[in-house]
Amino acid sequence: MVKIVLDGFGGDSSPGVNVDGAVLALERFPDLSLILTGDEQLLKKELDTKNYDRARVEIVHAPEVIDVNEKPTDAIRLKKESSMMKGIRLLREDDSIAGLVSIGSTGALVAAAQLRIGRLKNVIRPTFCPILPSMTGGIVGVCDSGANVDVTPDYLQQFAIMGSLYLENVYHVERPRVGLLNIGVEEEKGDQLRKEAYKLLSETGNINFAGNMEARDLLTGKFDLVVCDGFSGNILIKGAEGTALQMMKMIKSKIYSKTVYKLGAGLMKPMFAEIKEFMNYQNYGGSVVLGARKVVVKGHGSSDGTAVCKCIEQARQMQLSELSEKIEQELPEYVKH
Amino acid sequence: MVKIVLDGFGGDSSPGVNVDGAVLALERFPDLSLILTGDEQLLKKELDTKNYDRARVEIVHAPEVIDVNEKPTDAIRLKKESSMMKGIRLLREDDSIAGLVSIGSTGALVAAAQLRIGRLKNVIRPTFCPILPSMTGGIVGVCDSGANVDVTPDYLQQFAIMGSLYLENVYHVERPRVGLLNIGVEEEKGDQLRKEAYKLLSETGNINFAGNMEARDLLTGKFDLVVCDGFSGNILIKGAEGTALQMMKMIKSKIYSKTVYKLGAGLMKPMFAEIKEFMNYQNYGGSVVLGARKVVVKGHGSSDGTAVCKCIEQARQMQLSELSEKIEQELPEYVKH
Repeated sequence: MVKIVLDGFGGDSSPGVNVDGAVLALERFPDLSLILTGDEQLLKKELDTKNYDRARVEIVHAPEVIDVNEKPTDAIRLKKESSMMKGIRLLREDDSIAGLVSIGSTGALVAAAQLRIGRLKNVIRPTFCPILPSMTGGIVGVCDSGANVDVTPDYLQQFAIMGSLYLENVYHVERPRVGLLNIGVEEEKGDQLRKEAYKLLSETGNINFAGNMEARDLLTGKFDLVVCDGFSGNILIKGAEGTALQMMKMIKSKIYSKTVYKLGAGLMKPMFAEIKEFMNYQNYGGSVVLGARKVVVKGHGSSDGTAVCKCIEQARQMQLSELSEKIEQELPEYVKH
Repeated sequence: MVKIVLDGFGGDSSPGVNVDGAVLALERFPDLSLILTGDEQLLKKELDTKNYDRARVEIVHAPEVIDVNEKPTDAIRLKKESSMMKGIRLLREDDSIAGLVSIGSTGALVAAAQLRIGRLKNVIRPTFCPILPSMTGGIVGVCDSGANVDVTPDYLQQFAIMGSLYLENVYHVERPRVGLLNIGVEEEKGDQLRKEAYKLLSETGNINFAGNMEARDLLTGKFDLVVCDGFSGNILIKGAEGTALQMMKMIKSKIYSKTVYKLGAGLMKPMFAEIKEFMNYQNYGGSVVLGARKVVVKGHGSSDGTAVCKCIEQARQMQLSELSEKIEQELPEYVKH
C-alpha cells in the first residue's frame, strides 16, 4: 500500500477538484490509500456524491486554508490548522505516509517542505523542480526554480544528481542531458559560480553533463534537465511562460480584429486546441520538492480533477521507484568548504 | 555635424548592408558624416554602386574582421586591424567622433567599449541595454543584459538612472516605469542584492521606480525599463526570444501538416506577417552601451540596410540629445562602500 496525504484545499476550485482527483486516483491504483485534509464537512459532502472505496480514504479535519497571497513563513507559522500544514504535520510524524500532494500556495508548501519535513542524507537543501514541455515532444525539468536563490557549486551538483534521478525514475528519461544555465555555451562563460559549477559538473560521474546551456534552448529539446540557482530558474520559467501567454493573447486579439482572420482561424481550430493543450502544464504533472525526507508534489492552483490525479500518480511513482533511497545512494557526502 | 564611425563588417551580409545603411542615413540626415572601417577595396566597390554625398564619407582601411565565435577578450587584444577595433581606436582617439555603430560580435564590442573607451564621470561600469517590443505597442529596455554578471545595488541604481535617461531622450518615453527584476513582486522578495537594491531604488529621486517585477511581465507593457544583473537579464531576454521563436516554429510546422490548416493560414497571411514584423527586433533599433564615454550602438548581425540606418539614427539621436551630459549630471557621486 502507498499512503499519500492530499491537501483538500488551496486550489482555485477546491475541494471539488481535489476530491475528483482523489477518486480518480483510487480507481486507477488499487495499492493507493489517501488521507484528505481540510474542512471535514465540506470534504464529506463532496465525497458523498461519488463512488469510491471508503476503506482507502481517511479525512483529517483542518478548518483553515492558506491563501496564495499569504507570506509563506507567516502561513506555516500561524496557520497550523490549515489543510496544508495539517498535511505537513501528518507527513512528518507518520512513518506510514509516503508523500503529500497539494495544489495550494507554492511558497508555503516549499518552505514547509524545507523547514518541517527534513532532508535526505547528505542533501544540503531540497530543490523545487517543475517540468515543462519541450518542442520535440519531450519534457524538460528545471532545478532549482525558486526555492534556493543563493547557491554554491555544491548545491548545483546536488540539483543535477537529484534532478537526473527524478527524470529517470518518474519520467523514464534515459541518461538525462544536464545543461548548466549560463549566458553562453563556452566553458569559461558566466560568473565565478558558473565557472566552478561547470568544472564540478564535468567531474561528476553519475550524471550526463552536456555543458553550458543558453536560455534560448529551454524548449528546444537539447537538454532534459536545466541546472541553475533559484533566482535565474524562476526568471527563466516565468519569462518563457509569460512570453508564450502574451503571444497567444496577441494572436487571439488579432484573429478577432478581422472577419477573414476569424474565418481562417475557424479552419485551424483543432490546431489551436493542440497548441493550447501543449502549453497546458497540467499535462506534464506537478512540480516536486527533491531532497526532502518525504515526497512532496505541488500541482497548479488551477488544476482540475485529472491534473490532481496526475500529481497523486507522480507521488506514488516517486515512492515506488525508491527515488529517495537512490538519491541517498548517489549523492556524494557533503563537506562544507 | 555629427560624425559617426560605422564598422563596415561583422554582420551576416557585410559589407553590403552596412553600405546600404550608411547611404540611407546620409540621405536622411544632412548633418551626418560617416567613417566606414574595413577592407577599403570592398567598401569602395560597394559605395561605387551608390549615389551619395562623398564629402561626408571617409573610409579607414582595416583588413581583418572579428568573427562572432571569437573569444571577445582575445579578439580585442589580437585583432587590432579589424574593422571593429579600428573603429574603437578612432572613437577613443578622435574627439570629433561622437559614436560607433557595429553589427559585429556583441561580446567583442561590449568588452571593447568597457575596456577601451572609458567611462563617463561617476559611472561604475557601462551597461548593455537592448530594446524589446511590448505587447501594448510600446517598448521595454533591459539594463543590464549581459555585460555585468556581478553587480551591487549601486550598479543597479546606475543602470536605472542611465536607462531611464536613455528611454526619455531617445525613445521619448515620459517618466519610464522602472521595474526591478525579481522572483516576486513583494518588497521582501529575492536575495540580499535585490532587497538592498529595492531600498536604494525606492530612495532614488530621479527615477520612476515601480517596484519589483516578475519575469512574466517582460512584454506586458507594465514596465518601460527592467533593471537587473547581467546574468538574469541575459536569461530573461534569451528565454523570451527562444520561446517566441519556438512557438512560431511550432505553429508553422503544424500549419504545413494539414491542407485545411494551410488553407486557413492562407487567409491569415497578413496577420502572420504582422506578428513576424512585431517580433523583428530590427524595428526597435540596436542595443546600446550606456555609461561609456562615447556613444556605442550594436545592431543585430542579421541587420539589413534599413536596420543599420536605424542604428546610425539612434547613435545620432543619443549625441544630439546630449545623453552623456545628462547621465553625468544625474548620476550620484559613486563612493565605493
